[in-house]
Amino acid sequence: MKNTDKAVTVLGLGAMGSALARAFIAAGHPTTVWNRAPEKAAALVAAGAVRADTAAAAVAASPLVVVCLGDHRSVHEVLDPVGDALAGRVLVNLTTGTPEQARELDAWARERGAEHLDGGIMAVPPMIGTPSAFVLYSGPLRTFDAHRAALDVLGGSRFVGEDPGLASLHDLALLSGMYGMFGGALQAFALVCSAGGSAKEFAPTLREWLGSMSEFVTGSAEQIDTGDYATGVVATLAMQASGYVHLVDVAKAQGVSAELLAPLAALMERRVADGHGQDDIASVIEALVEPRAATGVTGGNR
Amino acid sequence: MKNTDKAVTVLGLGAMGSALARAFIAAGHPTTVWNRAPEKAAALVAAGAVRADTAAAAVAASPLVVVCLGDHRSVHEVLDPVGDALAGRVLVNLTTGTPEQARELDAWARERGAEHLDGGIMAVPPMIGTPSAFVLYSGPLRTFDAHRAALDVLGGSRFVGEDPGLASLHDLALLSGMYGMFGGALQAFALVCSAGGSAKEFAPTLREWLGSMSEFVTGSAEQIDTGDYATGVVATLAMQASGYVHLVDVAKAQGVSAELLAPLAALMERRVADGHGQDDIASVIEALVEPRAATGVTGGNR
Ligand SMILES: NC(=O)c1ccc[n+]([C@@H]2O[C@H](COP(=O)([O-])OP(=O)(O)OC[C@H]3O[C@@H](n4cnc5c(N)ncnc54)[C@H](OP(=O)(O)O)[C@@H]3O)[C@@H](O)[C@H]2O)c1
Ligand SMILES: NC(=O)c1ccc[n+]([C@@H]2O[C@H](COP(=O)([O-])OP(=O)(O)OC[C@H]3O[C@@H](n4cnc5c(N)ncnc54)[C@H](OP(=O)(O)O)[C@@H]3O)[C@@H](O)[C@H]2O)c1
Repeated sequence: MKNTDKAVTVLGLGAMGSALARAFIAAGHPTTVWNRAPEKAAALVAAGAVRADTAAAAVAASPLVVVCLGDHRSVHEVLDPVGDALAGRVLVNLTTGTPEQARELDAWARERGAEHLDGGIMAVPPMIGTPSAFVLYSGPLRTFDAHRAALDVLGGSRFVGEDPGLASLHDLALLSGMYGMFGGALQAFALVCSAGGSAKEFAPTLREWLGSMSEFVTGSAEQIDTGDYATGVVATLAMQASGYVHLVDVAKAQGVSAELLAPLAALMERRVADGHGQDDIASVIEALVEPRAATGVTGGNR
Repeated sequence: MKNTDKAVTVLGLGAMGSALARAFIAAGHPTTVWNRAPEKAAALVAAGAVRADTAAAAVAASPLVVVCLGDHRSVHEVLDPVGDALAGRVLVNLTTGTPEQARELDAWARERGAEHLDGGIMAVPPMIGTPSAFVLYSGPLRTFDAHRAALDVLGGSRFVGEDPGLASLHDLALLSGMYGMFGGALQAFALVCSAGGSAKEFAPTLREWLGSMSEFVTGSAEQIDTGDYATGVVATLAMQASGYVHLVDVAKAQGVSAELLAPLAALMERRVADGHGQDDIASVIEALVEPRAATGVTGGNR
């Protein structure tokens, strides 16, 4: 079956749903669209989509049904009345939610005779259909394999496991990492601007620095998997904890709130007090996990 | 004067001071070294350095005196007794400290007839002398220009302004950004590992994602400088604040502490409550700066 033979339905035409539909249309998929507020379909119809009058008609139109709505609750509001129409179809839920919500929807869909893939979109709408977008998927591998060609239209598809909650878990993990970086960047800008500096002049250095320091991600992964944070340490946690005090001091001196800095300081101090001062900084992850494992966050793996 | 004619002294041979001395030696500078615990000089002497018996002799040996000690207090402990020997020399302080400490040392050095540059090393010791290291400098531009060739031996030299506190301010700003990213990455790893996932398998995706999302630094800089966070917004603060709740929920469900996530949640909610829900997320920087400016962190610039 050629890609262009495979009909796709998109339910939900917000900023993201519209971008998804546009990518399917551009790749030549017969595309049916539906949105609660019907006027949002107009631009897509002009681009070649077919507008369905009801969610039920939209589901009936295609073997592959992609859902991208506000939240888990709205997914059920739209799908509950049309559950029977899903039998024999593949439901791809790209609405952001928790792993628990993904597992609940998975059971719900399977009860109705549908296959279900849950996904997490790692992109903003303008990136959809470009190489910089990627989408995480979890659910039955054979379902993923069977529909991968169509899904690849949205961006790189990455299968993270059969537990339907995993795409969502990885999605929220990546977002947690991103917001940490955003908070750090805003703290950095606040300091530089507090002295009358220009954010725009400072930005290239900040971005380059974050890029180079993202090596931390690679370097700490092995430490985290093994639970050994003490081999080949370049800058000990004790040293870093004492240097970190400067960050708090300078913020206060510059009239910048130190609230974003406080939790990591507390974690570092806790680990040092617990006798891990000679560890690398990744060691603080052990203080994040409750109840604390004896060694290694993934204690169960060893 | 050729680089190799310029004698350099390095005071402090810890992990970083030793790396600095090694780079000067490798570039052919006649290099004199001194450390409180003298045995740390041995490897450098073997590599071609001259060991001075006292800090005074070390200062007397070269026109350019680079200091890299534990902290500001240790800088004074080492330099106070040899202040007179600094007259006519250039003191380059690469010890991490606050802007206030840099300004204090600057006044102290000028009183003693020395020129002073303050610097912030943006690298770990193994990076010194490689293209990925850079060092921020502040102080008199003509002093920087006169010694730039020698300083470039350590890594790319970046002059950030004549106020001697600026290198330190930018240094601490970059470190604040880095620790934000580190905290975010550890939160991400904790989530994935809490479900039995492998940090090593997840790391490439996390690193790629952070690299792609570091576009935020570039995009938000202009918003911050202008104080306009409401033009061309792709994902509003209100949307992001409500999505952020998932990050906290999933952490709790997985037994991972949400303490690193809490302050940004509070800042986002505060900005939304203050009527900025339609802004972009960079808008939260306004809530970091106290007393809050009417518009724009750098309100004074406009
Ligand atoms: N935008 C992004 O940058 C981005 C990135 C990654 C993931 N996502 C995820 O993609 C999903 C959609 O985001 P978006 O940016 O497209 O949001 P959006 O622009 O606010 O659109 C929300 C969509 O959900 C529909 N909806 C909400 N409640 C509904 C209900 N009770 N019944 C029927 N339809 C309902 C809306 O329909 P109406 O038009 O009728 O209101 C609209 O189509 C979210 O889960 C989001 O987290 C977004
Ligand atoms: N390591 C890094 O990754 C890194 C990165 C950027 C910046 N820095 C900065 O570079 C500076 C040095 O760091 P480092 O990694 O080299 O630290 P380190 O290995 O702990 O070395 C500290 C040095 O300071 C000396 N010292 C401390 N107190 C002293 C005192 N009261 N009198 C005389 N000497 C004293 C020590 O002498 P003894 O040997 O006699 O104890 C040693 O030479 C710090 O400001 C640090 O923030 C380090």
